[in-house]
Amino acid sequence: MSKNNLFNKRSWKPAQIIVSFYVIAAIVSVSLLSLPIALKPGVHWSFVDIVFTAVSALSVTGLTVVSTVDTFSTTGVFFLLFILQFGGIGIMTLGTFVWLLMGRKIGLKERQLIMTDQNRSYLSGLVLLMKQILLIIVLIELVGTLVLGTYFLNYYSTWQEAYYQGLFAAVSATTNAGFDITGSSLIPFANDYFVQFVTIILLTLGAIGFPVLIELKDFLTNRTKNSNHFSLYTKLTTVTFFSLMIFGTVVILLFEANHFFAGKSWHESFFYAFFQSSTTRNGGLATMDVSLFSEPTLLALCFLMFIGASPSSVGGGIRTTTFAVILLLLFSFAKGQKNVKVFKREIHEDDIRKSVVVSFLAFMICFIAITILLETEQFSLMPIMFEVSSAFGTTGLSMGITPELSEIGKIVIIALMFIGRIGILSFIFLFQHGNQEVKYHYPTERIIVG
Amino acid sequence: MSKNNLFNKRSWKPAQIIVSFYVIAAIVSVSLLSLPIALKPGVHWSFVDIVFTAVSALSVTGLTVVSTVDTFSTTGVFFLLFILQFGGIGIMTLGTFVWLLMGRKIGLKERQLIMTDQNRSYLSGLVLLMKQILLIIVLIELVGTLVLGTYFLNYYSTWQEAYYQGLFAAVSATTNAGFDITGSSLIPFANDYFVQFVTIILLTLGAIGFPVLIELKDFLTNRTKNSNHFSLYTKLTTVTFFSLMIFGTVVILLFEANHFFAGKSWHESFFYAFFQSSTTRNGGLATMDVSLFSEPTLLALCFLMFIGASPSSVGGGIRTTTFAVILLLLFSFAKGQKNVKVFKREIHEDDIRKSVVVSFLAFMICFIAITILLETEQFSLMPIMFEVSSAFGTTGLSMGITPELSEIGKIVIIALMFIGRIGILSFIFLFQHGNQEVKYHYPTERIIVG
Ligand SMILES: [K+]
Ligand SMILES: [K+]
Repeated sequence: MSKNNLFNKRSWKPAQIIVSFYVIAAIVSVSLLSLPIALKPGVHWSFVDIVFTAVSALSVTGLTVVSTVDTFSTTGVFFLLFILQFGGIGIMTLGTFVWLLMGRKIGLKERQLIMTDQNRSYLSGLVLLMKQILLIIVLIELVGTLVLGTYFLNYYSTWQEAYYQGLFAAVSATTNAGFDITGSSLIPFANDYFVQFVTIILLTLGAIGFPVLIELKDFLTNRTKNSNHFSLYTKLTTVTFFSLMIFGTVVILLFEANHFFAGKSWHESFFYAFFQSSTTRNGGLATMDVSLFSEPTLLALCFLMFIGASPSSVGGGIRTTTFAVILLLLFSFAKGQKNVKVFKREIHEDDIRKSVVVSFLAFMICFIAITILLETEQFSLMPIMFEVSSAFGTTGLSMGITPELSEIGKIVIIALMFIGRIGILSFIFLFQHGNQEVKYHYPTERIIVG
Repeated sequence: MSKNNLFNKRSWKPAQIIVSFYVIAAIVSVSLLSLPIALKPGVHWSFVDIVFTAVSALSVTGLTVVSTVDTFSTTGVFFLLFILQFGGIGIMTLGTFVWLLMGRKIGLKERQLIMTDQNRSYLSGLVLLMKQILLIIVLIELVGTLVLGTYFLNYYSTWQEAYYQGLFAAVSATTNAGFDITGSSLIPFANDYFVQFVTIILLTLGAIGFPVLIELKDFLTNRTKNSNHFSLYTKLTTVTFFSLMIFGTVVILLFEANHFFAGKSWHESFFYAFFQSSTTRNGGLATMDVSLFSEPTLLALCFLMFIGASPSSVGGGIRTTTFAVILLLLFSFAKGQKNVKVFKREIHEDDIRKSVVVSFLAFMICFIAITILLETEQFSLMPIMFEVSSAFGTTGLSMGITPELSEIGKIVIIALMFIGRIGILSFIFLFQHGNQEVKYHYPTERIIVG
């Protein structure tokens, strides 16, 4: 590496880049949303609400303290779209890039992913990666806008309005932003299965993770003919992603059969369950008021939101692979196996350790946040737990308490969206002084656990 | 090992012994409590309630669906005492024994603990161990009975009644049973700091774990003059135990300052906080109606009960050492260290893995239990979560919903008390077909987590 290389290994830490990126982006976003031109006439909002909306948009969470449609002018909506786009793509790029940086000897797919070689600097790799991600995302959004916009000609009187709504819906879905300009999420389309289906596809493409999209693209364009084409990561995250989607659907159908679904047709029930399950993977849009669900369903949704989306995607939470590794660890242990096997591969000890640390730390952070909110807010445990899971998972679903949160409550949620977005690992590395080699050992002594 | 040895390594699994022990003990306990002689005249109770009470007593949890004092005759109370004693000592013995069996090459203290050698069979070791534990526990209870009984002469009109109350209080405290014959736990002694202080000492001696007591005894009787006397296990569990006690006290004082403690003197507040914190380590007795606490405090108590007591003690939960190992793991990771160091020793990889598995599995079991109870019961999330943590931790505190649980609810709580008692590790080993050696390997492939 040359001395002039800004991205010299010694001179920066990935976590510092990420956090700097977000702090700067947040300041720019707050500035944009503070401009009078962004607001409808007569709208005034507090500084905390501006920061909340900016962080919610930048982290593509979608929790809102103000109604988007009542607050923003059309210019403001385009600002918001820009922030969502920037946030979504930035997250994906940085996520993938940091992963590549942190585990540089990680396997077969690396070169292919970053499309760089030893002689190219990290910086040019980053630029290339971002271009590739931008291309894929914009392509998906473009197709989404065309499909939804054209379909919306049935709903709206002018083609401008139809494509405007289509554009917002497509970008909000692809970036898993969860924002809406209908004023009530996707509830107006509760019986329009076409819109829901397209939305679920867009949500999934955004939340499944960039490496999966690249591998899928290569597979479809036949650039790889190897039968053992897909990486362990892609297999694991994809299986987990869709398993959680199915699990959620079944759980909702089961728990709501005699509650929310009582008297509804099978296809209504199925689509309500399927959409609300999919949206916990990270979308945050909803075709119903989720607070109408019964408590067991809400608890299950908390769990699903806490897990969140795939790594290197637009989504947050502990991430699908983390959850998968924990489950596999439990199974291996129960079978008395020391190593964790899946898809004829073994999971690396370090990845297991990372998954464990991420899960525990995430749990502790959410637990502390819930305790604080129980003290500062007037709401009971369930809506608070739901809000916290949603913020940490950057999902954006809410039982409706967001606008009524106290200032401290809003700050806690802002912090959670931030941590959920940069990811627990980056959060840890932020406080870590480089990887310490093992310099000395103490004798090992066994203890009693459990 | 001789062919006649019943406890041949090949012929039995520790988990099977434990479960068999508990199933038989539960049947005997249910039979005893079903006898008409055990009940006050005119008392009738359902089969589920008998099983609930028997399992609660045997697992020394102390959750009650019926009032002990209104249900049982004096004979019944002695039956109950017998079950508590049997449960408490059985748990300690089996816990310690299985630990010794499962990790036979575990360190310096083993011989000293089991006081046996290679030529002696496991069975005689078990008998010896049980004798030793019985001796220690009975000694503690005897002193407790004398102290409390004598002191109770101030409270009760006859010496028989005073020592009867003293005996029950001492046994219930030492075994951390949480049962009471006052009809309202230790609330009558809310202002009697002497009774509370003695109770806390008895609770602690029961819940700190047998290996700690043995090491302490040896230290006090000067049988070991080595300055580096205490094992890593003893240091770790003791520090964690008392740290949790202090942490709980501070948290309760903090959260209740403007709620339950408003207008109370500093010593009243302190003793309420200190006692209720101590009791989450496993006692389950209370000097107040815990449902009067505010929600943040209740959530913190859930957390403390979930952790529970030390291993090889009368208590349940994931155990103090498990929690300590998880915390140490997080710190090591944050410092970029691969190995977990504490007290100039390193924690064995297998113990870390066990702690992780125990914590996750415990969490999942409790989560599932909470979801079921949310569906079957009419109570909100907080009292249900409290009840589940209390049952799993075999603590026995309750916000008062136990008697109103549905039959399914009672069965769920019975299962939790059972699992909490035998311990997650035994629960896993129950379904495990022996430790499989690593017979084959797959290639290791790195993945993205977190
Ligand atoms: K979202
Ligand atoms: K107890």
